[in-house]
Amino acid sequence: MRPMSEHLFLRACRRQPVERTPIWMMRQAGRYLPAYRAVRARASFLDLCRTPELACEVTLQPIDEFGFDAAILFSDILITLPAMGLDVAFPDTGPKVGSPLRDRAAIDALVVPDPTSSLAPSLEAIRQIKTGLRDRVPLIGFAGAPLTMLTYAVEGGGSKDYPHTKKLLYGDPASAHVLLDKLARTCAAFLEAQVEAGCDAVQIFDSWGGIVSPGDFREYPLRYAKKVIEILRASPTFQSRDIPIIYFVNGCAPYLDDYASSGADVLGVDWRVGIDQVRRRVGDGVALQGNLDPGALFASPAEIRARVADILERAGKVGHIFNLGHGVLPETNPEHVRAMVTAVKELSARS
Amino acid sequence: MRPMSEHLFLRACRRQPVERTPIWMMRQAGRYLPAYRAVRARASFLDLCRTPELACEVTLQPIDEFGFDAAILFSDILITLPAMGLDVAFPDTGPKVGSPLRDRAAIDALVVPDPTSSLAPSLEAIRQIKTGLRDRVPLIGFAGAPLTMLTYAVEGGGSKDYPHTKKLLYGDPASAHVLLDKLARTCAAFLEAQVEAGCDAVQIFDSWGGIVSPGDFREYPLRYAKKVIEILRASPTFQSRDIPIIYFVNGCAPYLDDYASSGADVLGVDWRVGIDQVRRRVGDGVALQGNLDPGALFASPAEIRARVADILERAGKVGHIFNLGHGVLPETNPEHVRAMVTAVKELSARS
Repeated sequence: MRPMSEHLFLRACRRQPVERTPIWMMRQAGRYLPAYRAVRARASFLDLCRTPELACEVTLQPIDEFGFDAAILFSDILITLPAMGLDVAFPDTGPKVGSPLRDRAAIDALVVPDPTSSLAPSLEAIRQIKTGLRDRVPLIGFAGAPLTMLTYAVEGGGSKDYPHTKKLLYGDPASAHVLLDKLARTCAAFLEAQVEAGCDAVQIFDSWGGIVSPGDFREYPLRYAKKVIEILRASPTFQSRDIPIIYFVNGCAPYLDDYASSGADVLGVDWRVGIDQVRRRVGDGVALQGNLDPGALFASPAEIRARVADILERAGKVGHIFNLGHGVLPETNPEHVRAMVTAVKELSARS
Repeated sequence: MRPMSEHLFLRACRRQPVERTPIWMMRQAGRYLPAYRAVRARASFLDLCRTPELACEVTLQPIDEFGFDAAILFSDILITLPAMGLDVAFPDTGPKVGSPLRDRAAIDALVVPDPTSSLAPSLEAIRQIKTGLRDRVPLIGFAGAPLTMLTYAVEGGGSKDYPHTKKLLYGDPASAHVLLDKLARTCAAFLEAQVEAGCDAVQIFDSWGGIVSPGDFREYPLRYAKKVIEILRASPTFQSRDIPIIYFVNGCAPYLDDYASSGADVLGVDWRVGIDQVRRRVGDGVALQGNLDPGALFASPAEIRARVADILERAGKVGHIFNLGHGVLPETNPEHVRAMVTAVKELSARS
């Protein structure tokens, strides 16, 4: 078995030559998978996140089932909010923050938590997953990007138009910056702790980084993602192990001129933009990860294979990690996931 | 008073010289306005749409209040669905389709309605609004684009991930095309009837045209928007009065290379992309409409003025209609709307 640092996924993150394109899938441990639903029938979502044995079990399921080239810690980006002082519930209708942030006093009251105590179950899950993986594939840790965490903390849940977010960003920018700074330090500390616990790479999820104008993208999501990345780059753990950092903005197309300046090793690409167009605009200094429409897994296996071939051709073989453009949808047929994995492995090895 | 065809807004649509940039605002007749809420307290949303006197009253309110350069019929894109055979309710939590389309039989059962009977109240409202406007400003008619109407018809309401839409588009493309064809003919017939009733321009709203990959954009939203536009171009009414057609895709950034091929006179631009970047990519053959973030109206009047100045400079004075990048948010302060209108009128006259 080759050393972990030479694993396909990590080589692709560093833009080194690979014998074929690696693949993993956002939300690969999740509701589309019968084995996951069986575990979930016995435990709430939050219990799953906070019980290391269960988080470990569901993290490993898609590796065993489909042969993905990376595992990702089973957790949720909102897991850091309770540690900062906010109540979060996870009903089946989507997460809800009990008392969303609506004034400066509430922002000032938030703490930047020490993850080794307040997020200990996730770190223990990482240690168990690493043992369970036996270096078959690398393990990715993750956290929500500052702007995305801000939207949940102030809206209280999902939103169509993000009115509270925009009231804060544009109506009270000074308070927005105080909050984003706390969220950036929380994100960085958690990612550092995840790597110290054993993760081999990290992804910063800016699921709602794409709701602003290009100028505001530089001022808010990008600025604070950069801050997280700067903290991580200065960390001895990241330096000594050369840990790749993935930055994913859902809806990145409007910001391609700035996206590459994030400082990440890998940029996530959602499905709404051609990955070849992204490559032309961001240059050759970063790897790209993506970008099949999660909804395309509703197509026939033959159509899935054709779409995989199209993306592989647009992306090229160097510096590409195959993934969906966002999380897999719960309604997805697992056999169609298998068709995608098989297509990526076969077609990229040939080309 | 100049002839209607020489009005500022219509000249900008045709890329003719203007003394200043015209402005109107998506959802300008709406909940942010106290005068609108006063009418709405007496009637349900649907009653408002279907009572010509009330629709006329609220359509005129923002013209009198802010001096917008165009009026837009008060209605809702979903108004065509009941005419096609689907139940739609408009509770305050957002519109709901009673029995969403989930199989081919339901699609086959839909009719392409004759708008002169089934949508008569909207057409009567147009006649009353034209009388009330006394040619002060042009009146815009509108309808939902085929792909956007499909998403509502199959999801049954708003959606985060559009799983039913994507199951239909990618899992059963033949049925999707049958449905989109019916929706395109419905859209075109309704827009034609609106112009025959007196509208001076039309806008095709593809609010959810931005949820697909670039290849699927060509295959679904763009293809059927083109079909609508082709039908309208062939209409004697549109030809004899040289009626401008506006096509608006919310989230247009990934598709700029194809967007200009729609055949529309004006392309709507949402707030997430620089309007100068859109101009570079679509060329000089079309006018552009947009693109202030609706959320930017939460900023101070001074900041709003600075953002207006930035957009005016990026857009240039020829072929630009100022607008928000999407509908105004209900939480908006009307005085901030006034600050935007004043800034557009003053700053574009000077430059």
